Amino acid sequence: MIKVIISGFNGSMGQKAVNMVNSASDMQLVAGYNSIITDLDPKTYGLSDDVKVFNKLADINIEADIWIDFSVPSAVFENTKFAIEQGIRPVIGTSGMSEDQTSELKKLADSKELGGIIASNFGLSAVLMMKFAQVAAKYFSESEIVEKHHEDKIDAPSGTAMNTARLIYQARGKDQEQHSSEDPLHTRGGDYHGTKIHALRLPGFVADEEVIFGGVGETLTISQSTSDRESFMTGVKLAIHEVMKRNQLVIGLEQII
Amino acid sequence: MIKVIISGFNGSMGQKAVNMVNSASDMQLVAGYNSIITDLDPKTYGLSDDVKVFNKLADINIEADIWIDFSVPSAVFENTKFAIEQGIRPVIGTSGMSEDQTSELKKLADSKELGGIIASNFGLSAVLMMKFAQVAAKYFSESEIVEKHHEDKIDAPSGTAMNTARLIYQARGKDQEQHSSEDPLHTRGGDYHGTKIHALRLPGFVADEEVIFGGVGETLTISQSTSDRESFMTGVKLAIHEVMKRNQLVIGLEQII
Amino acid sequence: MIKVIISGFNGSMGQKAVNMVNSASDMQLVAGYNSIITDLDPKTYGLSDDVKVFNKLADINIEADIWIDFSVPSAVFENTKFAIEQGIRPVIGTSGMSEDQTSELKKLADSKELGGIIASNFGLSAVLMMKFAQVAAKYFSESEIVEKHHEDKIDAPSGTAMNTARLIYQARGKDQEQHSSEDPLHTRGGDYHGTKIHALRLPGFVADEEVIFGGVGETLTISQSTSDRESFMTGVKLAIHEVMKRNQLVIGLEQII
Amino acid sequence: MIKVIISGFNGSMGQKAVNMVNSASDMQLVAGYNSIITDLDPKTYGLSDDVKVFNKLADINIEADIWIDFSVPSAVFENTKFAIEQGIRPVIGTSGMSEDQTSELKKLADSKELGGIIASNFGLSAVLMMKFAQVAAKYFSESEIVEKHHEDKIDAPSGTAMNTARLIYQARGKDQEQHSSEDPLHTRGGDYHGTKIHALRLPGFVADEEVIFGGVGETLTISQSTSDRESFMTGVKLAIHEVMKRNQLVIGLEQII
Repeated sequence: MIKVIISGFNGSMGQKAVNMVNSASDMQLVAGYNSIITDLDPKTYGLSDDVKVFNKLADINIEADIWIDFSVPSAVFENTKFAIEQGIRPVIGTSGMSEDQTSELKKLADSKELGGIIASNFGLSAVLMMKFAQVAAKYFSESEIVEKHHEDKIDAPSGTAMNTARLIYQARGKDQEQHSSEDPLHTRGGDYHGTKIHALRLPGFVADEEVIFGGVGETLTISQSTSDRESFMTGVKLAIHEVMKRNQLVIGLEQII
Repeated sequence: MIKVIISGFNGSMGQKAVNMVNSASDMQLVAGYNSIITDLDPKTYGLSDDVKVFNKLADINIEADIWIDFSVPSAVFENTKFAIEQGIRPVIGTSGMSEDQTSELKKLADSKELGGIIASNFGLSAVLMMKFAQVAAKYFSESEIVEKHHEDKIDAPSGTAMNTARLIYQARGKDQEQHSSEDPLHTRGGDYHGTKIHALRLPGFVADEEVIFGGVGETLTISQSTSDRESFMTGVKLAIHEVMKRNQLVIGLEQII
Repeated sequence: MIKVIISGFNGSMGQKAVNMVNSASDMQLVAGYNSIITDLDPKTYGLSDDVKVFNKLADINIEADIWIDFSVPSAVFENTKFAIEQGIRPVIGTSGMSEDQTSELKKLADSKELGGIIASNFGLSAVLMMKFAQVAAKYFSESEIVEKHHEDKIDAPSGTAMNTARLIYQARGKDQEQHSSEDPLHTRGGDYHGTKIHALRLPGFVADEEVIFGGVGETLTISQSTSDRESFMTGVKLAIHEVMKRNQLVIGLEQII
Repeated sequence: MIKVIISGFNGSMGQKAVNMVNSASDMQLVAGYNSIITDLDPKTYGLSDDVKVFNKLADINIEADIWIDFSVPSAVFENTKFAIEQGIRPVIGTSGMSEDQTSELKKLADSKELGGIIASNFGLSAVLMMKFAQVAAKYFSESEIVEKHHEDKIDAPSGTAMNTARLIYQARGKDQEQHSSEDPLHTRGGDYHGTKIHALRLPGFVADEEVIFGGVGETLTISQSTSDRESFMTGVKLAIHEVMKRNQLVIGLEQII
């Protein structure tokens, strides 16, 4: 049995992680952690009696294999550092760490030969889309990205669209050639090293991403759609099994699939 | 039998019109016209012996019911005026006339109670898309348009995308509400009275248009794709039959479907 | 103010209807009805004090303009009949009535010159899709339908796909021509008077429907996607306003849009 | 300069190959071959004077690096064998060989340490789609395939759809689980080891393929569209460069990308 601690266990994603662990036949939830709670009774949170609840890192004195983290940006670095120091493999879905911080954590885990993962996106469909886009970019010199999100998303483009554009640019190693065009309304959208990005914001959408490659007489489109962030748990589960076999910390789900 | 004259009969669209008329069981090609040709032998153009070929309007002295025009912008006004004066119903696919010119031609045809049509787009799928978008705009307050064309198209957005946006705006009678967003790369694309337009230019595409309406928990998408401009002939054929029953000149295929 | 009674007010759809009425500036919830509840205190259901709660039709003795029904198939006929007899305009989203029953109710409402609507689908995007498909079917002689639903949907095809096929067939007035094909795996899917229907069942989908029309060199696609049945409330709201102006009962949202 | 012989040089695909070689800066067309022609003058075929034209294999006595074959099923085995025996690397796009024949040719080429390729599909977008599907199949246990072709295609499903289903099955190593469903019209389509295949045949389409993977709360779709078989030449060109570096014959474009 893989023993799991979940940091941020009573948040929205944390709850999904609790359900995932409880329904996995080879995992056991041993503890939940959240620094801002005061009630430490597991029943308050619908957890069984043998699950410990903590609100201080220093109090966590139990054996565990995996530290899942869906807490908050301000806490994730300290949490992860603590887990590694305790020899608990980190599976980190909380965003907000700087590159310096993730580097430091990777060094720490690698020196202890401890498997682990820090990933901003545990959605398999998004990560596979990005992987495939990287490959396709070698064979198609032109591509554009379209992403569709609900009207309340305030940032554009989405992180996934931006990452996809970045990976395409890296795979090509050069800017995409521009076609000159008359475009008084600026309908050609955003531009990242020549790859155009188009962001749609409409009610009725949750999160759709699409990357389109065009060549002479053919197009190749890779698209993914997320209707429920519960999808992340498929990736978290996969990561847990993979991390148990490894002795290094990896950055990004794409490193293990 | 409907007797047809085709102006611009030996151009790319003209040729498709010749084939359409020849394969229609209720139509007969009686003449072809093009001011810049010198050889007036029908066999030169693969036409049967009983088809007359002309290069001067003044020489056209035969009876006909329909004047199809796929010639050039500089000639279309004079051609259409001539047809109406001769009592030949115009079916005009050549672009380039000013609003004043089409108004004058409409007045002339209407005064003679002569049916006719001037249309920039004889593609049924595009015209139906625009009609449907006009209806949907009454029920959905938010929409965006995505159009995809080959990389050699130099203007953006496409005429169809622009017309669709215009019809949506007219149907609503007011600007679409804007969502504030952070968008450093300007990925939100073009804006026509609040309806965002996104123009993709990639090899492998011919001409695709898509209008997306979003409401709470649902989206409605109307899209059309043109792979061959021969599709215009379906619309021209439909227009010919309709024009034969009418006694006014209409502007736009949407007026008769 | 439009005074509204909601039958089935504490069910899943009923709750959405309560929220819709409460957030509409020109509507007032005056009562909730459900025959199987015993507690008649509005506070139990999160309703304000001035909303009456009933569990017997005979007890409902208050004035109202609209009777929204999202109850159960076994109750809807009696409920609707009661509403009409009281002069309350019915807006019925509960399915399960026979054609004879809806006919009887229509006769009753019409004889009293009472507006009303019985609709199996209050989703605007689905209803518009069907309306547009009916029009397109006149101009395109060939079409196919693809619908995608979650893996737990046990019936195929969906009701919307089936209704769309039926409307296309009625608009054409004849079977769609079949192309002969070798198809050992039967990949050409279902067949309704020549219109092929393809039903996909995969996790990750909620409810998508798509009707594709094909002609020489062009295709026209009308598609709709439902991510949340709250979308029905847009249609219910529209229906309420329309029903207030009418003096007949109509069957189907498509009759009023 | 890579010296190229094109077998079937005056057919439809052969012509596209001629254009591709002529426009490549590092290739030179040295000969064209077709057993059924009688006129051996290069000018008859629009070729320059220094290109030799042959109609008998035995006559081909010139040095060359690459043998492109877009001839006919009945000739391709003999052609390829001849090329290999002459030490000319084969790039074979002609279909129709049995597995025994391709095995024999591979053995022959490998024994001579000669690079080469036999591929039924040189379309990069289709081959990448299949490769990506193979990877995605490891992470998603459910998928369906939709393919859309023109109404004149008489076989269903398409070869690409069938190959994609086969690769998915091989990647999973077991049948896809079936959901029970009521489906009186048989709308669930074809079935290959549990992966459903849906074949659409409508005018207006050329060749579209789509494979959809569904998981909890997410979907991943890989689709490709071919509008012009000139797209094959991108793959042929890529194959030529790759084959020059290899000393074995490979079966399938997917082996080298």
